[in-house]
Amino acid sequence: MNQTDVLVVGSSAAGLVAATTGKRVYPNKTFTVVTLQPKTLIPCGIPYVFGSVGSTDKDILPAEKMFETSGIQIIYDEVTDVNRKEKIAVLKSGTEISYTKLILATGSEPIKPGWLPGRDLKGVFTVPKNKIYLDEMHAELKQCKKIITIGAGFIGVEISDELNKAGKEVFLIEKLPYILGMAFDEDIAVKAQELLIQRGVTVKTGHGVEAIQGTDKVESVKLDNGEILEADAVILSMGYKPNTHLAKTMGLLVNSQGFIAVDEYMRTEDDSILAVGDCAEKRDFVTRKPSPVMLASTACAEARIAGMNLFKLSAIKTFSGTISIFSTALGNTGFGVAGLTENIARKEGFDIVTGVFNGIDRHPGTLSDTHTQFVKLIVGKESGVILGGEVYGGLSVGELTNTIGIIIQNRMSINSLLTAQIGTHPLLTASPAGYPLMKAAESASSQIMFAQLA
Amino acid sequence: MNQTDVLVVGSSAAGLVAATTGKRVYPNKTFTVVTLQPKTLIPCGIPYVFGSVGSTDKDILPAEKMFETSGIQIIYDEVTDVNRKEKIAVLKSGTEISYTKLILATGSEPIKPGWLPGRDLKGVFTVPKNKIYLDEMHAELKQCKKIITIGAGFIGVEISDELNKAGKEVFLIEKLPYILGMAFDEDIAVKAQELLIQRGVTVKTGHGVEAIQGTDKVESVKLDNGEILEADAVILSMGYKPNTHLAKTMGLLVNSQGFIAVDEYMRTEDDSILAVGDCAEKRDFVTRKPSPVMLASTACAEARIAGMNLFKLSAIKTFSGTISIFSTALGNTGFGVAGLTENIARKEGFDIVTGVFNGIDRHPGTLSDTHTQFVKLIVGKESGVILGGEVYGGLSVGELTNTIGIIIQNRMSINSLLTAQIGTHPLLTASPAGYPLMKAAESASSQIMFAQLA
Repeated sequence: MNQTDVLVVGSSAAGLVAATTGKRVYPNKTFTVVTLQPKTLIPCGIPYVFGSVGSTDKDILPAEKMFETSGIQIIYDEVTDVNRKEKIAVLKSGTEISYTKLILATGSEPIKPGWLPGRDLKGVFTVPKNKIYLDEMHAELKQCKKIITIGAGFIGVEISDELNKAGKEVFLIEKLPYILGMAFDEDIAVKAQELLIQRGVTVKTGHGVEAIQGTDKVESVKLDNGEILEADAVILSMGYKPNTHLAKTMGLLVNSQGFIAVDEYMRTEDDSILAVGDCAEKRDFVTRKPSPVMLASTACAEARIAGMNLFKLSAIKTFSGTISIFSTALGNTGFGVAGLTENIARKEGFDIVTGVFNGIDRHPGTLSDTHTQFVKLIVGKESGVILGGEVYGGLSVGELTNTIGIIIQNRMSINSLLTAQIGTHPLLTASPAGYPLMKAAESASSQIMFAQLA
Repeated sequence: MNQTDVLVVGSSAAGLVAATTGKRVYPNKTFTVVTLQPKTLIPCGIPYVFGSVGSTDKDILPAEKMFETSGIQIIYDEVTDVNRKEKIAVLKSGTEISYTKLILATGSEPIKPGWLPGRDLKGVFTVPKNKIYLDEMHAELKQCKKIITIGAGFIGVEISDELNKAGKEVFLIEKLPYILGMAFDEDIAVKAQELLIQRGVTVKTGHGVEAIQGTDKVESVKLDNGEILEADAVILSMGYKPNTHLAKTMGLLVNSQGFIAVDEYMRTEDDSILAVGDCAEKRDFVTRKPSPVMLASTACAEARIAGMNLFKLSAIKTFSGTISIFSTALGNTGFGVAGLTENIARKEGFDIVTGVFNGIDRHPGTLSDTHTQFVKLIVGKESGVILGGEVYGGLSVGELTNTIGIIIQNRMSINSLLTAQIGTHPLLTASPAGYPLMKAAESASSQIMFAQLA
């Protein structure tokens, strides 16, 4: 029987970072990773395979190289069961591996709703993190002219934009009033929607899908208002669910949202078994409620924590809760959000004010690559603590979103932000006197002040 | 006699933000700004006037409009003296204005060293924040072919690159071994220097200037190694000194570095008088020593604090010390630094480790606008607290530098950073598993770990 100190199941972002962090912190322990496929995709790069990147072969996470240089053994196989009492994992090939610590990083899989007629017709696709599937899908989509994407979350919007860029006629269907309506407040979502339409995607919002129609292959999509749209192919981008098949087989506790239950050290109820990434339970950083948000960045944070705490717990290395930090881009316009939106904050019962500012991302604005930049901050009215932020602007908003993420994670108040220093440069940022993040903070601060006077 | 509740001297970044913040927080008070010229320049945009921006008319801070919409009176004149006992300011025109609070935002002026022969020859320029001077200088430089810049700080480097871009033959002279050698450690400075040379600027480092030579106008520059370089014009970019003429006339305390002494509320020794921006005393956020660093971003933070504390002190709105956050760009490569460099940290006696990582700023790296991205972190060995960071990469490093600035201002430790979440997107940032800031943090963390084992 094979033996390893640490056995990691899965080699995507979470598995990779958990294994390499663990090996960095415990160099004398042996680490083994079991993964299905020899080539791991960069998950957030998948929509771009269909346009800007051009092929899954150009969207490879250098996981194998990173395992190899770290001295981590890699086995291409599947863990089918685990004897928790004996601490032995059984692989599909029949191989058995005994472990001291086991890390589950089994990820997530696309949702294909059971209620949707026609979901299994030829020409209907989901977007899994599976190279073989995506290669076949890519080849088939190349033959299609009219493509309908169902679900305008990030994956749906990005894949629609990329297929449009690749010359396809793309229809994007969304039940909510706006695209990206779960991630952004209306003010930002509207901007993204306008831009996507301007770029050539036909967007249908406010209507859900009733059925996918066709005899042997997909021919059309029927909406809940009776409208029928023709299609050569349909892409279901209706969300993802945690992959917990193995966890359930092993008898591990899975929470009501379907995630493997873990504590702040990423340990399951079994002290020897940890879970990280899309398959592991999360709590929202601000609301403290269970959170269904699955992000590669959160997965990496969880994986680092699991890796660091494998053989020695540290109270200063725990997971403080999921903070949703999303960003995306349409052409040269970026969109980002960190923490709570105004919608979510109000729905959760927070007493808030918001501060917004419309500015530019260079100074002077006469510089040729100047782009508008918009910032919205969501702030607790009583505490002044910054709960969320949303932005759109040029391509630097990805990093600007991270600045806001770090602000939220430090529970900074509007006063600490207004007395903090921000670096600015004509060719790189807004001006110091017109920096949209600070101007939005000023606006929020004024509203808190007026609220106190009232 | 005119009367105002708050009198602000100066309308550049500090004066503008102090006045508009004050008016926002105390809307029932009257505010008056006295400034020399009707058009205020964006200070950090000045080097770009000579190339990318093209004219001072396109580098205007919309100060007048902002004063007007805020309901702040503006007077084009100069405050020549102040009767502190009677609280009356005397203007050059003879007008007198009585005030309740006075804010000095008199800025800085370029250094023209008294020891340098030939400094007053025709064709020798400095870079003041003065539209009339810069317009004349710009017109004269257009007639020149060979231009020598003395001093390779940010202004010297930026103006050299812009004049080179505008078709001039530019020589940049610097006494230190590398350009930007005060702001960056050698690893980053070398990169900037290579790039500047590659872009066409002739760089001479390691030698100071001995004299500027010529009969009625400049003809050449003599270096301290005897070398003589011909020149049609010379630009002195040898630093700035606080403008404290008025403060001295008023008898206010000026510290040994030449700045007006202030407390954490930006008040001078006279409770009714505040000072902000380049003219006001600063302490370094980390070393707590007096700091000579003058930045528009710091000026704005100080100005906000002065404005907020004018009539009602708040212990949560104080200045926590200058954190140097610099950034610049050469073509499509950005450079940034926040907090202490390795050089400065060691010189100041900090026991540190550094963590570096060389990555890319998109993922996958097969995307067409991918740029290398380098991050270096400077971390206290015992505390794990992040004291500084340096970066270079694509144009998003301006905002990345701000993320690091916020990390330092929150006194985050390497553990809090490694357990924090960062948002990533293929078109906007590095990958979650290869985000250079996090990888540099991992490297620093490993070194702290090994140091503890040793």
